[in-house]
Amino acid sequence: MCIGDDRSCPEFEQHRAAFMAEMDHERRSFLKSAFVGAGGLSALGAGGLSLITPAMAEMAAAHQPAQKQHVHLSANDQTVHWGYFSKLLEPRARVRSGDYVTVETLTHHANDDAERMVEGDPGAESVYHWTKERKNVDRRGAGPMDASVYGRGAGEGMGVHIMTGPIYVEGAEPGDVLEVRILDVTPRPSANAQFKGKAFGSNAAAWWGFHYKDLVTEPKEREVVTIYEIDATGERNWARAVYNFRWVPQTDPFGVVHQTIDYPGVPVDHSTTSRNFDVLKNVRVPIRPHFGVIALAPSEADFVDSIPPGYFGGNMDNWRIGKGATMYYPVAVEGALVSMGDPHASQGDSELCGTAIECSLTGTFQLIVHKKADLAGTALEGLDYPMLETKDDWVVHGFTYRNYLEELGPQAQSEIYGKSSVDGALRDAFRKMRQFLMHAKGLTEDEAISLMSVGVDFGITQVVDGNWGVHAIIRKEIFAGETA
Amino acid sequence: MCIGDDRSCPEFEQHRAAFMAEMDHERRSFLKSAFVGAGGLSALGAGGLSLITPAMAEMAAAHQPAQKQHVHLSANDQTVHWGYFSKLLEPRARVRSGDYVTVETLTHHANDDAERMVEGDPGAESVYHWTKERKNVDRRGAGPMDASVYGRGAGEGMGVHIMTGPIYVEGAEPGDVLEVRILDVTPRPSANAQFKGKAFGSNAAAWWGFHYKDLVTEPKEREVVTIYEIDATGERNWARAVYNFRWVPQTDPFGVVHQTIDYPGVPVDHSTTSRNFDVLKNVRVPIRPHFGVIALAPSEADFVDSIPPGYFGGNMDNWRIGKGATMYYPVAVEGALVSMGDPHASQGDSELCGTAIECSLTGTFQLIVHKKADLAGTALEGLDYPMLETKDDWVVHGFTYRNYLEELGPQAQSEIYGKSSVDGALRDAFRKMRQFLMHAKGLTEDEAISLMSVGVDFGITQVVDGNWGVHAIIRKEIFAGETA
Repeated sequence: MCIGDDRSCPEFEQHRAAFMAEMDHERRSFLKSAFVGAGGLSALGAGGLSLITPAMAEMAAAHQPAQKQHVHLSANDQTVHWGYFSKLLEPRARVRSGDYVTVETLTHHANDDAERMVEGDPGAESVYHWTKERKNVDRRGAGPMDASVYGRGAGEGMGVHIMTGPIYVEGAEPGDVLEVRILDVTPRPSANAQFKGKAFGSNAAAWWGFHYKDLVTEPKEREVVTIYEIDATGERNWARAVYNFRWVPQTDPFGVVHQTIDYPGVPVDHSTTSRNFDVLKNVRVPIRPHFGVIALAPSEADFVDSIPPGYFGGNMDNWRIGKGATMYYPVAVEGALVSMGDPHASQGDSELCGTAIECSLTGTFQLIVHKKADLAGTALEGLDYPMLETKDDWVVHGFTYRNYLEELGPQAQSEIYGKSSVDGALRDAFRKMRQFLMHAKGLTEDEAISLMSVGVDFGITQVVDGNWGVHAIIRKEIFAGETA
Repeated sequence: MCIGDDRSCPEFEQHRAAFMAEMDHERRSFLKSAFVGAGGLSALGAGGLSLITPAMAEMAAAHQPAQKQHVHLSANDQTVHWGYFSKLLEPRARVRSGDYVTVETLTHHANDDAERMVEGDPGAESVYHWTKERKNVDRRGAGPMDASVYGRGAGEGMGVHIMTGPIYVEGAEPGDVLEVRILDVTPRPSANAQFKGKAFGSNAAAWWGFHYKDLVTEPKEREVVTIYEIDATGERNWARAVYNFRWVPQTDPFGVVHQTIDYPGVPVDHSTTSRNFDVLKNVRVPIRPHFGVIALAPSEADFVDSIPPGYFGGNMDNWRIGKGATMYYPVAVEGALVSMGDPHASQGDSELCGTAIECSLTGTFQLIVHKKADLAGTALEGLDYPMLETKDDWVVHGFTYRNYLEELGPQAQSEIYGKSSVDGALRDAFRKMRQFLMHAKGLTEDEAISLMSVGVDFGITQVVDGNWGVHAIIRKEIFAGETA
């Protein structure tokens, strides 16, 4: 029986509405809330064009159990991996195709203001716990555990994101496509009673930002962190700045001094900083809640830096990957091993200064496996890049290197940072959009190229993640004539 | 008395509505029509935030005559210059600050299908007239008249756009800012009775396109022209393809053979081509009518190639420069000498294959001079780049070189083509948006950089005009708190 998960059911919309209504008693208020951002509501609800045809939905459903389960994955020191992806990780949850999973995600910038983003929150406290004696999550990054490269700490901060997971999806095998529907996104309220009803995020204008070597005012070079406040009740659709401070060297509990923001989760001691509360007065930043990183485990290496995005998704940093959006990823390892992290309250195309409004969020997802054998002749056949579908658009993502792990050889994970280029990412986005239009929409190359010039918009996703990103957006309505 | 041109008048909106209603008897139907595109209606009508404060409007009004005139500038061989800008050109019209001008513009691709876009249209026939004996508009481009470089023809096609003008704006001097309000844009219907009610445009996937050396199907390298049809009555908000053809060598009336699309206005003899009418079936391209080129005469050189954009505007190819938008340009020479051309029915961000849907349009503009002495302390003080304002957004435009004419020395006009880069254009767009936020909005550099990362979208305007473009968009609503 369809419980809102079978698109071919004639009463799918009603069933889905009923399911969603009971799934979470808090959900109603969030549906009404402003916490949707501009990503657009539900590729599902569009009724019209979707990459998933009724026939594809039916084939996918044949691999799903009759009863769906809804798993809740909290964020704590036992359920996260920090700064890397790995096919070797023990799954933190197991689901079957079609199941729902609610995943708590924590921003790796919470310790920029622990008072607002960590204190009183058992999950965050567990992940961030770090005293002279004990560091609950020791490895942070894909680097060596003995910090023999830079001496920053275990994992060396070669990768920074707190990832919740991985989730093992039963039946997912290399060559399959994993559909990830983002059904809901909610902010994680501050657990500090002093800040009831509010959530917070941090924006770090850091040394890896596009601006860093190109400042006009003194002192050059500086790192500046701005703390933003978000309405946790979902009434207000904009964020505002609370204060900013210039980064000054911070000594971590193990005694390492961090001159710059070079290792994630270092507690900022605000007795050493100078906080400026007169910042961005009357400025309202529209919220665009989304997940900077949704990653399937790559097959190429055992430990993969979480920063550069690739065919497996990862740190794509596209603000359109929010509530109502659906992502499609090629599966590279058995079980897919999908993790979620890097939650953002808002970001602009380019993520210019190095980060977004980094803000802990909780997402509810449905995970659906499309078996390779079922995909022949469909829009998803041979999909070898991450693909985004929203209510209105299809979006492909180009990177400076399509698969840097494979293309750059054994030193790929360090070399990628020296090869960043928007020009290269545009080249890749062009090729992927052509591939999509020729393969999924059946156009000739000449048709695809003309349409790309007159009806596709290329934008700059991010220029701060090593493997820089350009996305290409095509509106679904362009193909509305097919069904008219 | 305010006739809809004085923002400080309490009844401005009504007066303007009345003025507009009588200005053109055809206007009412176009206002109701779909021919607005997605650029957004009127920066004026927003009522809220505009770069022009009431005080600035008042100062500008002090330089305007009490009675406004409305000039009509047709397109014919006496009113256009083809492929270049020049401070030496004799003005084709003279207006005073605040005056209205309706300007016919012709696409330089009309001869890709003369039957649909030239025949029976006296203006187009006059501009395109080219027989063995006579070529009405000989110079096409900023190159030598004796074609001693490539032998393509007079002007060598170093610059391609048919520009209507220039218009001399009385009182405009170097250091001032010219505000160009785009009040209306209408398609130019086919004059061929066979195609009544339709307008047409051409999209050339040409050798200067981003795709050209990167094709996957044979024969490589090929140029392909697609002819699109637009509803001239304004009922339909999308264009559709009619046919495409592969470019085959064309012999112009003077006997020069054009192996590629290397000189503008070469008549295509369709007895030599093979037209494919089975193209882009059921594909609807949303229309975004706009002017690819609005240019003020640059001061640096006598003849300037119309292709690379710069501080003077020129070939910016941003589809947001349509009805309802307002542009601000720094004035470089006395009288500003503004020309309009390169009309487009639609284009995507990047203009990937080299052209948009190149389609003749007529625009109605209001031209307003803001004197340098009046701009101290305003958002337009020291403006040294072209700035776009729409109802919802402010948009700055970065180029690979901010002012290539000055930066690249005597050979600038050829060297720019070897230096194209999106990376460079992003750098310039970042710097301009920072300049805008710090100067026009009074932010500190730290505030500006944080806001750029979390609330500004960087997109790729074009990668086919030598001096490649990146635009940065900031929503006005971000500053709505100022007035709340």
